[in-house]
Amino acid sequence: MKHCSIIFIILAGGLSACVRPIPEDLIKLDKEFADLYREKGMKYAFMEYAADSAVLLQRNIMPIVGKTAINDAFEAFSDTGFTLTWEPLYAEISKSGDLGYTYGLYTSLIKSSNSQTRGKYVTIWKRQADGSWKYVLDGGNEGL
Amino acid sequence: MKHCSIIFIILAGGLSACVRPIPEDLIKLDKEFADLYREKGMKYAFMEYAADSAVLLQRNIMPIVGKTAINDAFEAFSDTGFTLTWEPLYAEISKSGDLGYTYGLYTSLIKSSNSQTRGKYVTIWKRQADGSWKYVLDGGNEGL
Repeated sequence: MKHCSIIFIILAGGLSACVRPIPEDLIKLDKEFADLYREKGMKYAFMEYAADSAVLLQRNIMPIVGKTAINDAFEAFSDTGFTLTWEPLYAEISKSGDLGYTYGLYTSLIKSSNSQTRGKYVTIWKRQADGSWKYVLDGGNEGL
Repeated sequence: MKHCSIIFIILAGGLSACVRPIPEDLIKLDKEFADLYREKGMKYAFMEYAADSAVLLQRNIMPIVGKTAINDAFEAFSDTGFTLTWEPLYAEISKSGDLGYTYGLYTSLIKSSNSQTRGKYVTIWKRQADGSWKYVLDGGNEGL
């Protein structure tokens, strides 16, 4: 029985590594990213989901390149005055299942004035060596 | 000799189909896209390089989804008052060589006032059945 269990574990592990990711996986992932943002704040979520080489394209500044630079940018930035929510509309994934993207709509709410800004975003995802997905690029622009 | 030529053509065709695209191919492609824009204008270039499912994320409007909608959007838009140039900074491509992206910096010059706006863009590319690359998403935001 012990041997059978070991064989089963090896087989299951092998099968799980072979399962080709599908676009729905990225939709789910992007929603989990938004959930984590809501629970733990901008910096935590954007660091948690960043690949080492991740790039942020944010308005009015040069591209922020690399996880260290992203960390530094969020150190100098407070998100306590607003909330950001987003919802992916679409996902696509490469045949090799290692690169994909989501795009969707976001809403930013400034708490003090209760004013709302809406916009669009795109997130490009890359599968990491451990099978997890991290974003390699994230950006967007205002207005719908 | 005739048979040899035919065999050579078949072999060369087969090899060329097997050559895995590399990021430098997307850098070159994105520059060709910018060149075509300069030569033939915004609508021509953005239609020429659009996949059927292409999406534009432009400021202050909802995502423009599909080549037909992109065509309609450019019909109602004149780019004769400004020029747009761009330069890719980086490209990445999936292992399967069917999906990739470039990002870089753009400069928009308003001819009448000679005033300049700079910004960042990202273009996601998908290889088509005929081996050509078309963009499936393009967007960006202002300010460096």
